Amino acid sequence: MEKDFGGFRNILIIGLGLIGGSIAVSLKNSGYKGKIYGFDLSEDRVKKAIEMKAVDEAFTDLKKIPWKEIDLVIIATPVKTFENVAKQIKPYLRKDTVVTDVGSVKGELVKKLQDILKPVKFVGAHPIAGTEKEGIENSVVGLFRNKKLILTIDEEDNSTKKIEKFWTDLGAKVEVMDPYTHDFVFASVSHLPHAVAFALVDALIELSKETGIDLFLYPGAGFKDFTRIAASSPTVWKDIFIENKENLLHTIDKFIQSMEKLKRYIEEENQDKLIEILSEIREKRLSLEKEEKDV
Amino acid sequence: MEKDFGGFRNILIIGLGLIGGSIAVSLKNSGYKGKIYGFDLSEDRVKKAIEMKAVDEAFTDLKKIPWKEIDLVIIATPVKTFENVAKQIKPYLRKDTVVTDVGSVKGELVKKLQDILKPVKFVGAHPIAGTEKEGIENSVVGLFRNKKLILTIDEEDNSTKKIEKFWTDLGAKVEVMDPYTHDFVFASVSHLPHAVAFALVDALIELSKETGIDLFLYPGAGFKDFTRIAASSPTVWKDIFIENKENLLHTIDKFIQSMEKLKRYIEEENQDKLIEILSEIREKRLSLEKEEKDV
Repeated sequence: MEKDFGGFRNILIIGLGLIGGSIAVSLKNSGYKGKIYGFDLSEDRVKKAIEMKAVDEAFTDLKKIPWKEIDLVIIATPVKTFENVAKQIKPYLRKDTVVTDVGSVKGELVKKLQDILKPVKFVGAHPIAGTEKEGIENSVVGLFRNKKLILTIDEEDNSTKKIEKFWTDLGAKVEVMDPYTHDFVFASVSHLPHAVAFALVDALIELSKETGIDLFLYPGAGFKDFTRIAASSPTVWKDIFIENKENLLHTIDKFIQSMEKLKRYIEEENQDKLIEILSEIREKRLSLEKEEKDV
Repeated sequence: MEKDFGGFRNILIIGLGLIGGSIAVSLKNSGYKGKIYGFDLSEDRVKKAIEMKAVDEAFTDLKKIPWKEIDLVIIATPVKTFENVAKQIKPYLRKDTVVTDVGSVKGELVKKLQDILKPVKFVGAHPIAGTEKEGIENSVVGLFRNKKLILTIDEEDNSTKKIEKFWTDLGAKVEVMDPYTHDFVFASVSHLPHAVAFALVDALIELSKETGIDLFLYPGAGFKDFTRIAASSPTVWKDIFIENKENLLHTIDKFIQSMEKLKRYIEEENQDKLIEILSEIREKRLSLEKEEKDV
């Protein structure tokens, strides 16, 4: 099927950060023919977006946006701001414009946005892609290629099909999921690992203070990979943690139980149990690599 | 200074796994002129080592080793076996042969090995290098190049200088540390991160069981890096955890405190504290990258 990015003629990206910027530069590099408009509260980011030619025009004032031309609005700000963004843009939207997002939290938030925006259609989307870097200047062309994109919709309709086509044409592998299931799954596989990475670096800071030895002088092989994600944006992650609080707290409790279990086996020097649990974990992790190669 | 690998004419490597094998192939590729002998209890590994030409000769029977020729013995088995290995080889050693190791745990163990082996000199060494793979077939030429090598010695003498030259000629950056400090430092920067990675995968296994959703189908961006080290050898890590138990349990407690602190801030939706702690962590992690670039 021909690449038409869902047939949206002109697009507005709200929030000119790493993800918003990567959508823009990826569209430009994939032959998207429509205009790409940007909006951000920061003059600085707007300037950068224009300098980089990521967008055709960018604004810091909603009133100046040529709303009549816009078929698709992508909200790419931190999730905490979504409700406010929806309320602010609502008066300007054409009824047949589609609004979507790229946020890591869905669930209740999707329902709230649908309520605020109706009769305008809101389609929740979450690209499983990113880097630990921030800012439009770190945008990556092709960031979404061969990455999963979760559409959190209850039922298919014309708007959801167009959003699906938009992401497929950007190279993503689209998967549909219920918004609540989405939040549990990503609490487990993304938000929990980030929380754990943050806590690990925090523990090393505390241990360094306690002993006067700068432990950060000895980053071993696994340690750097491990804490790479601890360099992720504080604002983005504070919002995600709070927005997906219920699921995240549950997964943190489960993780602490696993940590306590491992601690107990080490305390008891329980060799059989240690071998058993470490072998099970190893196999699970290796099966991930196998699946990737099978793709 | 000319590369002479400490002047050891012939070397015996006990334990033909990833590290032992990588020492052998790195020596062969760096112009080492002496003979490299290997020993392993497994016929299979001995065969592989010879097939790969990692070693000149390899044995499964200690009695068959040409002990008179051997100037350096490198113990590269799991740390749990060190005492037994030392006792077994003791009767065969020349008095001027030097024994060293590549283990991740020092402290008491170094003292015990020195006692068992004297008057033969034991020099504790720990190369900060490795991969999550096991086995001599995964050996890497140049694995130790530009990696830290910690020598855990109380005072310099002729033997320690020779071991230092051996590793420097393999490309490692040698640093001297007290054996007890070593164990605390590596409990924090290596053993704790491994324990955390194991616990994280374990938590995801438990959460998958609880909900019937296979969470391993959704490995997000950071998740794979993060759990790469959870595929590390169960035997090696069970031994390290038990051998360095006291330090490790202390760092696990500190880590759980950090996790509980983060959990509390999320529970309270304490935005200021979250931003404060996540920013401090981010800066610490980014300073690691900066230091690397400065090198």
